[in-house]
Amino acid sequence: MSVANSFDRSTIERIVRQIVLQQPLAGPARDDGASSQPDVVISISARHVHLTNEHVEILFGPGHTLTPMKPLYQDGYYAADETVMVVGPRRRMLPTVRILGPTRSASQVELAFTDSISLGIDAPVRHSGRIEGTPGCVLVGPKGVVELKQGVIRAARHVHMNVRDAARLGIQNGDNVKLRIESPSCTTVFEDVLVRADETSKLEVHLDTDEGNACFLDAATKVELLPLGTACGCATQQ
Amino acid sequence: MSVANSFDRSTIERIVRQIVLQQPLAGPARDDGASSQPDVVISISARHVHLTNEHVEILFGPGHTLTPMKPLYQDGYYAADETVMVVGPRRRMLPTVRILGPTRSASQVELAFTDSISLGIDAPVRHSGRIEGTPGCVLVGPKGVVELKQGVIRAARHVHMNVRDAARLGIQNGDNVKLRIESPSCTTVFEDVLVRADETSKLEVHLDTDEGNACFLDAATKVELLPLGTACGCATQQ
Repeated sequence: MSVANSFDRSTIERIVRQIVLQQPLAGPARDDGASSQPDVVISISARHVHLTNEHVEILFGPGHTLTPMKPLYQDGYYAADETVMVVGPRRRMLPTVRILGPTRSASQVELAFTDSISLGIDAPVRHSGRIEGTPGCVLVGPKGVVELKQGVIRAARHVHMNVRDAARLGIQNGDNVKLRIESPSCTTVFEDVLVRADETSKLEVHLDTDEGNACFLDAATKVELLPLGTACGCATQQ
Repeated sequence: MSVANSFDRSTIERIVRQIVLQQPLAGPARDDGASSQPDVVISISARHVHLTNEHVEILFGPGHTLTPMKPLYQDGYYAADETVMVVGPRRRMLPTVRILGPTRSASQVELAFTDSISLGIDAPVRHSGRIEGTPGCVLVGPKGVVELKQGVIRAARHVHMNVRDAARLGIQNGDNVKLRIESPSCTTVFEDVLVRADETSKLEVHLDTDEGNACFLDAATKVELLPLGTACGCATQQ
């Protein structure tokens, strides 16, 4: 019986899956009317790589720069045309992992836990950029190879927003909030969602594919971002 | 550069991952002392197959019966030596999916959502045995092939227990409860956990690999089963 390799995930996984649902009033009492209730975008990031300019040139050739393929929800960010092979220990590998732009000051590989098991890399849960002491891997591009000494992480849950969204929710940069996603037979509350608030970001939660699959995000009917000190409604739901 | 296929998951995934933590007092007030606080076993089931006797014989040869390899936590259940290839549409496949015994009255394939994406099968979330109208697949064994007309599901979260555990928790068979798993940066509350209580089962939660990975079960430090009407503690936890 002829069967193809079932695991070329790059052909069957989207780079980003998203749902957009309205955030119900969850912060402190307000007098500014229902119109200010923000939409919440939940984005599931498939595994991806961030690169330095130097590593782009090693992997893709001198003078090469990333080619934007698809804009991401946050302004200025994009999925690039370019992909690399990520190689772990014992010759396990992920053949085509998408690069996200723009380039950064340090290269970083973000995996879901399922991916890290596949690769045989014990990737710790870290927030982006906090890669001190994390495992490394080998990146293989069409023109060269880079050995990362560190930088393989499982990206910790977080939510981007601007400081005005944060104020409306009664929270601030660096807080942890809870995210409750209601979906058929799979309703889930994610705690430990770090708030990353600045002047310009749009309200967007980042989960990984394991988290998105666990809560059956594609079928979600309701989402709530809940500040600390707020019960998640779990005692009265169902 | 020589790289092996990274995706022979059967060699890198355990059939079942488990943690055992003590269930804190969460039910109604009791007078029977701390010693009655039950341990909660959380088991993460990797993808697996249940077969009928007839299908065992088609796949492995006339007269063949399953060979127990490893007992599961519930008495009488086991992971078998035998595995099958599960083939989805467009020739995607999972090469070696473990069979769990004993045999059943209907064959069934239980996948995590991640697996179903790999296979290209839109598996619905169902409780075991509720396979009416679900997608089918092809099973390939060393001696034959079975085409399942239905039976591919994503197993819904559930908790086995005996009726005495249920009574202590103030719940009964068919109820839904919540499961809160506390782990570093990944604390998660799973709602919609169906109680399957009978006279003999041991207290054990079944999650799939996506759910286990999403809550970082391997690092969990605390687990709580919470009856309906009980706040999950989320308002005061972080």
